[in-house]
Amino acid sequence: MASIFSKIIAREIPAYIIAEDDDFIAILDAFPIQKGHCLVIPKKEIDKVYDMDNALLEKYLIFSKPIAKAIEKAFPCERVGLSFVGLEVPHAHLHLVPITNMEDMNFTREKLNLSTKEMQEIQEKIQSYLA
Amino acid sequence: MASIFSKIIAREIPAYIIAEDDDFIAILDAFPIQKGHCLVIPKKEIDKVYDMDNALLEKYLIFSKPIAKAIEKAFPCERVGLSFVGLEVPHAHLHLVPITNMEDMNFTREKLNLSTKEMQEIQEKIQSYLA
Repeated sequence: MASIFSKIIAREIPAYIIAEDDDFIAILDAFPIQKGHCLVIPKKEIDKVYDMDNALLEKYLIFSKPIAKAIEKAFPCERVGLSFVGLEVPHAHLHLVPITNMEDMNFTREKLNLSTKEMQEIQEKIQSYLA
Repeated sequence: MASIFSKIIAREIPAYIIAEDDDFIAILDAFPIQKGHCLVIPKKEIDKVYDMDNALLEKYLIFSKPIAKAIEKAFPCERVGLSFVGLEVPHAHLHLVPITNMEDMNFTREKLNLSTKEMQEIQEKIQSYLA
């Protein structure tokens, strides 16, 4: 069965898309731990990042780099943390989270409950810094 | 001033080295949150991973991949989490942590206090799976 991320990539379910190329898609995390929390996902459905072929793997951080820079500009933070955890969806995904302290990067913390309007504003704000 | 990681790379201070090439070094984290917690560090001292040149950045996950696989084999876990946090040392470093649940990847948790003997055993165990 296709992962929830493959369904997003196939446009079968909606998401707040930030950027996309042939190999990767960047979206807002639907269960953010910080405002600006994004995911970068390979379009090819592979569970563990370290099982990806080198030809695809070498592009992962390069695709993620401008997204991280845009998030850093869009939200007050010391930097953007990048993390592969992967316990919940068996399809590799890199979390990009604006952080100021270690607790900001704690994935066990309570998720934010943002409105559609807030998610759209976050999407637009990040995209404005990608241009 | 050289970062603590640059001093390790220059062999000015000791570390439990797991692997090394021209561009990266993998060591045991001196303040591990799990047994098997490693760091992969670029030899060139750059603070934020997303400020690295693409020519170096594209090699980062490729160098880290066999280390992650070796940690996964060496320690009981569901998978290995990979995380750039970077708030404590201004020299990019990727944490590789064997995890079974989200709390295992929480960097605010208390660090393990391992003996020299335990650190050496962990180093040898990971290296045995790299071979």
